[in-house]
Amino acid sequence: MKCIILPEKYDYDGSQISSLWAYNSFGVQEDSIIIFRGACDVKIEHMIDLEDRRANESIWSEDMVSFIIEHFDSTDLKLVYARQRLFTALVREHLAGLGISTSRKGDDLFLEGKKLTVSIASTSAVSQKIHFGINVSHEIYGNLREAGIGDNEGIVRFMKEIGETYVREFEDIEKDLRKSRPLGVV
Amino acid sequence: MKCIILPEKYDYDGSQISSLWAYNSFGVQEDSIIIFRGACDVKIEHMIDLEDRRANESIWSEDMVSFIIEHFDSTDLKLVYARQRLFTALVREHLAGLGISTSRKGDDLFLEGKKLTVSIASTSAVSQKIHFGINVSHEIYGNLREAGIGDNEGIVRFMKEIGETYVREFEDIEKDLRKSRPLGVV
Amino acid sequence: MKCIILPEKYDYDGSQISSLWAYNSFGVQEDSIIIFRGACDVKIEHMIDLEDRRANESIWSEDMVSFIIEHFDSTDLKLVYARQRLFTALVREHLAGLGISTSRKGDDLFLEGKKLTVSIASTSAVSQKIHFGINVSHEIYGNLREAGIGDNEGIVRFMKEIGETYVREFEDIEKDLRKSRPLGVV
Amino acid sequence: MKCIILPEKYDYDGSQISSLWAYNSFGVQEDSIIIFRGACDVKIEHMIDLEDRRANESIWSEDMVSFIIEHFDSTDLKLVYARQRLFTALVREHLAGLGISTSRKGDDLFLEGKKLTVSIASTSAVSQKIHFGINVSHEIYGNLREAGIGDNEGIVRFMKEIGETYVREFEDIEKDLRKSRPLGVV
Amino acid sequence: MKCIILPEKYDYDGSQISSLWAYNSFGVQEDSIIIFRGACDVKIEHMIDLEDRRANESIWSEDMVSFIIEHFDSTDLKLVYARQRLFTALVREHLAGLGISTSRKGDDLFLEGKKLTVSIASTSAVSQKIHFGINVSHEIYGNLREAGIGDNEGIVRFMKEIGETYVREFEDIEKDLRKSRPLGVV
Amino acid sequence: MKCIILPEKYDYDGSQISSLWAYNSFGVQEDSIIIFRGACDVKIEHMIDLEDRRANESIWSEDMVSFIIEHFDSTDLKLVYARQRLFTALVREHLAGLGISTSRKGDDLFLEGKKLTVSIASTSAVSQKIHFGINVSHEIYGNLREAGIGDNEGIVRFMKEIGETYVREFEDIEKDLRKSRPLGVV
Repeated sequence: MKCIILPEKYDYDGSQISSLWAYNSFGVQEDSIIIFRGACDVKIEHMIDLEDRRANESIWSEDMVSFIIEHFDSTDLKLVYARQRLFTALVREHLAGLGISTSRKGDDLFLEGKKLTVSIASTSAVSQKIHFGINVSHEIYGNLREAGIGDNEGIVRFMKEIGETYVREFEDIEKDLRKSRPLGVV
Repeated sequence: MKCIILPEKYDYDGSQISSLWAYNSFGVQEDSIIIFRGACDVKIEHMIDLEDRRANESIWSEDMVSFIIEHFDSTDLKLVYARQRLFTALVREHLAGLGISTSRKGDDLFLEGKKLTVSIASTSAVSQKIHFGINVSHEIYGNLREAGIGDNEGIVRFMKEIGETYVREFEDIEKDLRKSRPLGVV
Repeated sequence: MKCIILPEKYDYDGSQISSLWAYNSFGVQEDSIIIFRGACDVKIEHMIDLEDRRANESIWSEDMVSFIIEHFDSTDLKLVYARQRLFTALVREHLAGLGISTSRKGDDLFLEGKKLTVSIASTSAVSQKIHFGINVSHEIYGNLREAGIGDNEGIVRFMKEIGETYVREFEDIEKDLRKSRPLGVV
Repeated sequence: MKCIILPEKYDYDGSQISSLWAYNSFGVQEDSIIIFRGACDVKIEHMIDLEDRRANESIWSEDMVSFIIEHFDSTDLKLVYARQRLFTALVREHLAGLGISTSRKGDDLFLEGKKLTVSIASTSAVSQKIHFGINVSHEIYGNLREAGIGDNEGIVRFMKEIGETYVREFEDIEKDLRKSRPLGVV
Repeated sequence: MKCIILPEKYDYDGSQISSLWAYNSFGVQEDSIIIFRGACDVKIEHMIDLEDRRANESIWSEDMVSFIIEHFDSTDLKLVYARQRLFTALVREHLAGLGISTSRKGDDLFLEGKKLTVSIASTSAVSQKIHFGINVSHEIYGNLREAGIGDNEGIVRFMKEIGETYVREFEDIEKDLRKSRPLGVV
Repeated sequence: MKCIILPEKYDYDGSQISSLWAYNSFGVQEDSIIIFRGACDVKIEHMIDLEDRRANESIWSEDMVSFIIEHFDSTDLKLVYARQRLFTALVREHLAGLGISTSRKGDDLFLEGKKLTVSIASTSAVSQKIHFGINVSHEIYGNLREAGIGDNEGIVRFMKEIGETYVREFEDIEKDLRKSRPLGVV
């Protein structure tokens, strides 16, 4: 599994959640987590979560770190959702390790009661994808700057460490499931 | 999904990881998490993790809280492992909420560097299962008593809250995946 | 699994077979069977059955009861087709219980040799769906009125009882598969 | 899919539910339905339904027609259960066509309130199987003799027609799913 | 599985890779391999391989034999790719049998270092498909004419024999997997 | 995917086809191909192919090269059989490259009409496995010595090259399926 951190600013408009975006943009032919920072403004046609569509909610942030995960090993909706929740928990663990306490409700993290993140997961016929975005700065919502991670270096380190943590977790799982016997039966 | 907390002491010998144990013992015909407290001494024939077998490791605790999760919605090994990791993260989150700081390495939690938990996951042709055990007291390993959860009431509350948290998480995931559109494609 | 009977007339134009229609229209976040009554006129772009398209067949009824079933537990084409056939058999059983004798050929029911029903099943990347429609009145085809179920109350009862029967059957299956051991092998 | 009717008496002891029994006994290398008539006495080690085991129930009949279905196209538990219910409905339809009215509750048929049939379904790692048995004569339970199908010829015809009906239904489903477009999405 | 050889010239423009093309064009309701000969000029909107799209590569041949395989038994991407490679190997074996030596690199065959074939495989929500094309004549690339199969009769025989070989291989696999016991476990 | 060539003689008795043998013996936690050379004498309890069991056939060779492939990415029987056939074709290609002409019938290779190889494939609840054995010397059957590969060095090179070829093929497939768009639909 490959981790790529884009060196330049890159805006998220929702098209990046499409299957094969990583291959098309960067030629990646592995499962991948692509990480970048930029503005976020999701166009209605790229809204995957129908709840947002129905509520006509805007998914907007002036400065956000985005994680785009793609797996080709399965198109099972249950699996990508379990992975999304696990990823959310990993981010929370990492923030806690930095001394930043958040609360989690489903796939959302909250900082002092303010929503810090956005996330969606889904599948196509060929792959499964997760988008997880975390505000760097925001006038209304929770953001990393208020949490004390405001300088560029801190953000870059954060992007890198989360990315590497997920890759390690994924590869560790793949190893673990290769040493377990099938269950017995009553 | 059903959560059952056994009111009496119940020892874990590894046979509880077998598929259909919950139905056979308690007549449960739903996905379930069964929670109980008692000694832990896993017989060699019930060891699912071949690493333990190869190392001839003993899985032993004089007093352990055990969580036995069974899902029948899939027999995908990748899914049960993602769920196991998510469960581990949930337990860690809950402990953190109680002011108990642990570290996580894969499916293991550590308390001040000492291994606090044991866990295994696998599948049969009909279901997937997870065992997650956490020492209440132990001479060598980390345990809840040292973490400050020593009285019966505290343990019972801990068992109940973790069980309910997992059921809530599972049901929340099931709801979330019923409102997401398929991915577009580049 | 949820059963919803729409209280007002509702026309079927084929768009209701799309995945997530139930969520989008009624906010349902469970597997569901939505039942309504109204005219039926399927637009060509919503025709799922290519046989109808190729034959340029019209799927039209002035007054039809429609059952829209959606499951998110699998996207297996074989499973949704087995469920469609089972549903058809359930409707036939129910009609027989009302003293109305029909014959079944695949997913079609016939009343005195005249086609009484239309049905289609398919999958997307996120869910599987079935449409099953039964004429209340029709100039050419078989219909419930001719079968003696003509008054509003009778139709409403019919809608309700079929819906509840399918939910019961589905939930009963889910229970049954949680008490069966894997097969032995020769 | 192959339908084989054994010409001689053949007793059912539960071992026939094992995967690959059809190949091992008759060299069949297709999906199959094997039909035979004989005594039924299921040994405890072949009991797949844990409910029967727990209740220490005897599955016994002096004269029973057994249908043994095996599919290798999937090991999905949900699919084999949907097929089992569909098969049960087919048998009921066929009996109704012979003027024999039964009631169905899950995978059981009842004749004048007396249980007429036994059935079980499950999977191994390589195939899925269904056993469906119907009493020809029985002192306590419902049976075909009381229903008016008592002579050998009638039983043989019944075995043949049910077998052929299931094969036809299966092949018809396989054809139907090869002409349906994927679902659109809201 | 059905093998159909189109008697007339038929051009490949890429739309034939769509799911259900065989049903829509020829009414086939089985898994199938459709074989035809004609010009090849793939429109950009039908390019499945993003590598070709990115490279803005033209997929063009004045005279090509095309094999279009469709299976409905699974939508697993791994399976269709294994089948594609197997098919490629079958073609190579057949050419070798005709005394034509080629080299294989992935899903491509080369004749004296010149690319002889094009191929792509993918899935939709309802089926999996493979296109495999082999130049009959080409100014730049390898082609059958240069390999010594230039007359119409030879080409027709080639089309027929490859088609029958794949059907035989597929059916042989289906038989083989119906006589193997599940694996034991260490 | 890992390729391991055992440096010492190692006899095949059929137990090596069990799931997790590679982990248990060599601690491998990846998909793997383990290659070794030694006598072959398959015990009846390890015979996976029921045809051999029914025929009471002995699977015996005084000197055989064995390839043991294990994948954990799927337990689909169709996939492991497609992979087995592909592997067989790879071996044949390699032999042809060495100037050794063989014929292939299903998963068997023949040298001048004499059976050169044995092979079996199957799945458990946790992995899929293939055994492919090729006689180095044999009194009755085809063997590498007669084909002109008789010296130790030649055999070792053969083992190594086949192993690496399969790993390369597998990894190449995994890359290819990560650049293909889902199919359009008619």
